[in-house]
Amino acid sequence: DTKLKIFSLNSNYPLAQEIAELMGVELGKCSVKHFSDGEIQINIEESIRGCDVFIVQSTSYPVNEHLMELLIMIDAVKRASARTVNVVIPYYGYARQDRKAKAREPITAKLVANLLETAGATRVIVLDLHAPQIQGFFDILIDHLMAVPLLSEYFKSKGFSEDDVVIVSPDHGGVTRARKMAERLKAPIAIIDKRRPKPNVAEVMNIVGNVEGKICILIDDIIDTAGTITIGANALIESGAKEVYACCTHPVLSGPAIERIQNSSIKELVVTNTIKLPEEKMIPKITQLSVAPLMAEAISRIYENKSVSTLFD
Amino acid sequence: DTKLKIFSLNSNYPLAQEIAELMGVELGKCSVKHFSDGEIQINIEESIRGCDVFIVQSTSYPVNEHLMELLIMIDAVKRASARTVNVVIPYYGYARQDRKAKAREPITAKLVANLLETAGATRVIVLDLHAPQIQGFFDILIDHLMAVPLLSEYFKSKGFSEDDVVIVSPDHGGVTRARKMAERLKAPIAIIDKRRPKPNVAEVMNIVGNVEGKICILIDDIIDTAGTITIGANALIESGAKEVYACCTHPVLSGPAIERIQNSSIKELVVTNTIKLPEEKMIPKITQLSVAPLMAEAISRIYENKSVSTLFD
Ligand SMILES: Nc1ncnc2c1ncn2[C@@H]1O[C@H](COP(=O)(O)O)[C@@H](O)[C@H]1O
Ligand SMILES: Nc1ncnc2c1ncn2[C@@H]1O[C@H](COP(=O)(O)O)[C@@H](O)[C@H]1O
Repeated sequence: DTKLKIFSLNSNYPLAQEIAELMGVELGKCSVKHFSDGEIQINIEESIRGCDVFIVQSTSYPVNEHLMELLIMIDAVKRASARTVNVVIPYYGYARQDRKAKAREPITAKLVANLLETAGATRVIVLDLHAPQIQGFFDILIDHLMAVPLLSEYFKSKGFSEDDVVIVSPDHGGVTRARKMAERLKAPIAIIDKRRPKPNVAEVMNIVGNVEGKICILIDDIIDTAGTITIGANALIESGAKEVYACCTHPVLSGPAIERIQNSSIKELVVTNTIKLPEEKMIPKITQLSVAPLMAEAISRIYENKSVSTLFD
Repeated sequence: DTKLKIFSLNSNYPLAQEIAELMGVELGKCSVKHFSDGEIQINIEESIRGCDVFIVQSTSYPVNEHLMELLIMIDAVKRASARTVNVVIPYYGYARQDRKAKAREPITAKLVANLLETAGATRVIVLDLHAPQIQGFFDILIDHLMAVPLLSEYFKSKGFSEDDVVIVSPDHGGVTRARKMAERLKAPIAIIDKRRPKPNVAEVMNIVGNVEGKICILIDDIIDTAGTITIGANALIESGAKEVYACCTHPVLSGPAIERIQNSSIKELVVTNTIKLPEEKMIPKITQLSVAPLMAEAISRIYENKSVSTLFD
């Protein structure tokens, strides 16, 4: 019997703590600090020889700091003779840099996958990657979990009448995700189809689908500066929607995001805790659901060598 | 004939600029910025297809930011079909984490070497690595340059009488470096031998060698918090030294360094520009010498496929 050890780095300690509690284990002891010159200093403070180690770290802001913490920790765990080095990345940073959209661009999402492998990760567990193709950037084992069931259950519990609800994708890239949620809520879908008629002319918001008098639920994977989602919400209200809710897995919420959400016609924004929100971003309009039960279940099953495929959607 | 291209990232633009000027070329056009969420965005703004590309970047403070800039740039350059991807790292951060000094420590200097290779570097050019063994951490080509000649020439130009000078190593780890400088200045060496007689008792500074009435030149590779060097300088004066100079290749100068140097008996501290010093660290006691001529010469010879071994010491 190999032993299970869960370690948290600095990006999201409360989430790791909650996962450990649900699994009935204590977090492993390690210290992650900085030397005087800013270099990361990691000390693992208990033996992990022969153990199955799970490291919980989101590569959220400050992304480069959190990514280097993770890489250095993987190196330390590997050199401390762990049996397996499993990396739990609730929010995978740099996921949007997943292709060359212009000449001479890097593909940083692939670079990060290679760096994790090079450092010594033997398996990664992620949640709602910006594009599911990023799974193929890894040659090591990868489990890709989904937050749609969690978000859907929350909206189900509101007791809306099925006939009143429409699930809305804020752009044509997100239709598959909207479809998944629509199935769970037995609701139809709509799509916001942005179009720029001519260069240097304002975009036109064309809503494909019927939203008049409906309760709209906008769904996205990441909300970053919140431009798309708030403009979309306002367009829905202008098209006669009764109420607009929004939800996403990863609340990046950078730059003007909070102000935009505050001033938008979004009634409530539902997010998960893959990214730890600082106090000033925890505004009343935002509801945060925990992915800890999902993560804990995935870790347990992987550790016990059981199938995790039912957690995929 | 392949074309040479030199790019600078954000750690030390003035040094890269000086190198390019000495070589009579313009720096390549690229922009290294941040997205709203802090992720690095790199755009190479000219074709580099088939070129020999040299990227100049010190992994100095903030080290994780500068290292990720470098890795992402390497990825972009590789994918833009450069013929060779040469990485010039005047200051190699994390070099002191080059062994497991305690159980369960990472070996981050080796991790960084692996990351650079994984990203796609085909050659690295470095200067005064903390330990020369770090060369062996790389499987790609590495050129290891030395600043001792540059520092020695500066002290030679002061016209001290050879009989008056002693080169001092601030600890037993740095004796080889002191020996190299002593040969160039035809001077004897001395060593500061710190010893803690019992646990929890103050260290004793024992000076091995004759420093009485002498002009002492302390030499180290890195000066970080400046504890070792300033305590050493004061011990030399107490042992009858006439004057104490200090020099190093890499002026990390973190935390209390500047205050300590200011208040110490060091008359002048001579450093190089491998690390760009912010305004507030450019105090009159500090003289900064440029490694640009050395770097430019190395890049020219590598590009022209000529031997660089004479630049090694
Ligand atoms: N951190 C980021 N913030 C904003 N835009 C990004 C970021 N990373 C990548 N991008 C850009 O976003 C686009 C990908 O987004 P998407 O079209 O939604 O898949 C690419 O053109 C990237 O250049
Ligand atoms: N950035 C850093 N600042 C201070 N000490 C460090 C740093 N990186 C590594 N170390 C420690 O310094 C020691 C190596 O220094 P040295 O004995 O001079 O080779 C190791 O025990 C490291 O744990």
